[in-house]
Amino acid sequence: MTIVDNSITLSKSELPQKWRNILPLLPTPLGPYRAPDGSDIPPAALGAIFPAQLIDQEFSPSEWVDIPEPVLEAYARWRPTPLVRARSLEAALKVRSKIYFKNESLSPSGSHKSNTALAQAYYNQAAGIARLATETGAGQWGTALSIAARHFNLAIRVYMVKVSLEQKPYRKTIMSLMGAEVLSSPSQLTQAGRAALAQDPQTPGSLGLAISEAVEEAASRPDTNYSLGSVLNHVLLHQTIIGLEVKKQLASIGQKPDYLIACHGGGSNFGGLVCPFVPEVLAGEKIQLLAAEPAACPSLTQGVYGYDYGDMAKLTPLMPMYSLGADFVPPAIHAGGLRYHGASPIVSALIKDGLAKAETVTAMEAFNRAKLFANTEYLVPAPESSHALALTCQKALDLEEAGTPGVLVFVLSGHGLLDLAAYEAAPRP
Amino acid sequence: MTIVDNSITLSKSELPQKWRNILPLLPTPLGPYRAPDGSDIPPAALGAIFPAQLIDQEFSPSEWVDIPEPVLEAYARWRPTPLVRARSLEAALKVRSKIYFKNESLSPSGSHKSNTALAQAYYNQAAGIARLATETGAGQWGTALSIAARHFNLAIRVYMVKVSLEQKPYRKTIMSLMGAEVLSSPSQLTQAGRAALAQDPQTPGSLGLAISEAVEEAASRPDTNYSLGSVLNHVLLHQTIIGLEVKKQLASIGQKPDYLIACHGGGSNFGGLVCPFVPEVLAGEKIQLLAAEPAACPSLTQGVYGYDYGDMAKLTPLMPMYSLGADFVPPAIHAGGLRYHGASPIVSALIKDGLAKAETVTAMEAFNRAKLFANTEYLVPAPESSHALALTCQKALDLEEAGTPGVLVFVLSGHGLLDLAAYEAAPRP
Repeated sequence: MTIVDNSITLSKSELPQKWRNILPLLPTPLGPYRAPDGSDIPPAALGAIFPAQLIDQEFSPSEWVDIPEPVLEAYARWRPTPLVRARSLEAALKVRSKIYFKNESLSPSGSHKSNTALAQAYYNQAAGIARLATETGAGQWGTALSIAARHFNLAIRVYMVKVSLEQKPYRKTIMSLMGAEVLSSPSQLTQAGRAALAQDPQTPGSLGLAISEAVEEAASRPDTNYSLGSVLNHVLLHQTIIGLEVKKQLASIGQKPDYLIACHGGGSNFGGLVCPFVPEVLAGEKIQLLAAEPAACPSLTQGVYGYDYGDMAKLTPLMPMYSLGADFVPPAIHAGGLRYHGASPIVSALIKDGLAKAETVTAMEAFNRAKLFANTEYLVPAPESSHALALTCQKALDLEEAGTPGVLVFVLSGHGLLDLAAYEAAPRP
Repeated sequence: MTIVDNSITLSKSELPQKWRNILPLLPTPLGPYRAPDGSDIPPAALGAIFPAQLIDQEFSPSEWVDIPEPVLEAYARWRPTPLVRARSLEAALKVRSKIYFKNESLSPSGSHKSNTALAQAYYNQAAGIARLATETGAGQWGTALSIAARHFNLAIRVYMVKVSLEQKPYRKTIMSLMGAEVLSSPSQLTQAGRAALAQDPQTPGSLGLAISEAVEEAASRPDTNYSLGSVLNHVLLHQTIIGLEVKKQLASIGQKPDYLIACHGGGSNFGGLVCPFVPEVLAGEKIQLLAAEPAACPSLTQGVYGYDYGDMAKLTPLMPMYSLGADFVPPAIHAGGLRYHGASPIVSALIKDGLAKAETVTAMEAFNRAKLFANTEYLVPAPESSHALALTCQKALDLEEAGTPGVLVFVLSGHGLLDLAAYEAAPRP
């Protein structure tokens, strides 16, 4: 018999060897980062917490950036990832649209976060840094950076948002297994943490606060740099490996996408998927770039565009982005990776200039579609990824009703095997 | 740059389309199954709990058995699985031997159990059965059969060994997500369960006892059949897909194996790996077929060969196998899938006839090597698979000391992402 192959795979030799930088392509150039007094921050000032090569990438005018060999070798442990046709999901939805998912859950950390974690760890090691400090929400970023730190021989401390640590204790187990030190945030180790605890000892914590703690530590220790899992331009740059592969994969089967959909917390997996397609959108191709954000933390759809801080304690520069306010503490939804008050400046610019759109998804919609996906594709999606999945299902149903089936691609940014507490807590039918 | 590819992959068209049956090749033919009075049990008597096609396979004289199309299609969702060169592990061990692992953790259930689960669910559905009853230890089998039951539209009840359910609560979550009903074993629903609870209300349960419960239920309900995740000949038959792929993969890179290593609980993953290589061993090729069993439950190395029951309540036929006694309750080690008093009749015959060997691994050795594997290959192995890994590491070190590096292949039978409680509980360095 002939066996149907639902996976569109690329060989190791087809792994993209450059990242795509869309900074020089943005119709409205990004404004500079600013200090509280409104003055521009010179890039070199970020040297207290980032290595020079990442700062260069943050503001790079080059359309393409070479991926260093050690990072490519690390990528090749699991990349290129398959683009998979979700035929069983299509059948369950009774739609004629083609639904594809980019399976980023196959990475060492189980999520797309490894794409930038390995790059950041590499550049820090190359710059002679011995130690990293970071934050993590749901734990995907902390896991990815813990593995990357081990790969490039760096020590690491992870501030994990308290509510996520309680919801997902085994995330700490796996990070510890990889050699990381994991703390509950807010902690007593930093001024930002102590201040938050003084104000509300019961605070569930937030990504914005955990960032403050990690940045404070990195800024105060010369051997330690800070590493951020989303938001920044260099993080989105590294994640473009996702969209670059999707582009090759769709081309290999002669398909053009109508919808490219990813969930949006800080913007790295959405940006990673869509940035490589921005030139086509600018050229007038009808590709909808669609961000799925949680109804409980609607930065893009209800936030205000302007300059805001990336963290709660206002230690980061002011950046031009959509934001719900740096002191916004999102409800303790299970999609911990989407609990961020702001948005990536690049994604914000795409939305502002009408090149991309955002829609909200409720936690219940996300859970119901996650269950359908598990029951049809036999993969348990992360709560974050379930938002992209839910919006994709909705768009496929809309297209069906309109009688115009299309091609939809979403990012399965991570698996949910370490998020089963979220499934356990979800309401039963 | 040229990227080193450590994965030996096969295309969908190279997926084996027949299973390998070594029953007709065994030097000493397997004795028949027997009743308590010593009389032979006619195969048809098993019809109360198994469909006819599986009973045929249990005693098949054919060297090859066609894999039905619906099972092949289901396999193709993730098979063929890659055979991966563990170069980073080799480097950490400082050995010149080549170590490969067959990555069965990529299945829908995260373990090799899906190979037989899908086949069994298919044959039951084809026979008009509406419902399955089964047991599960660590939860891998229960997860696999829950997914398979959903795929082939069967209802399913899973008796999960009490101590494993407590150690791994999220296994129940994932089985429930797939639509299964999960009970703690011993339960109050069966005579076997009630008797065990009466004798010791605190019993941790055991695979042998959970089997009794599921068999009792299947035997008493005409709409329900029983499904076993290991031990039986037809289960090993389905698992030969593992060894058949390994054979093709090694051939594709011109390698011959010196050691084929898998962990041994009931024998399905060990049998699945080695059975396809038995003809070569019979022909005099020097391939060591090596079973890694837990020191806490050493059925093959310290058990007695003879006729024994497959379950604690003595509801199954007597089978010729190595056994520690049907009433042996193994200590509550984390490798729940290896807590079985007996052994597959086929594996027992291979050991008895000197074609395969077994060695024990302590829980501590298994954990230490699991940590090394996680820190080098960035995959968290299941506690069961860690036994095979540990024995592989030991043999590679032995070969190094002897100055005779070789080719070692072990089965990564499952990932440990749902077993992180075991890692959390393990002693820290």
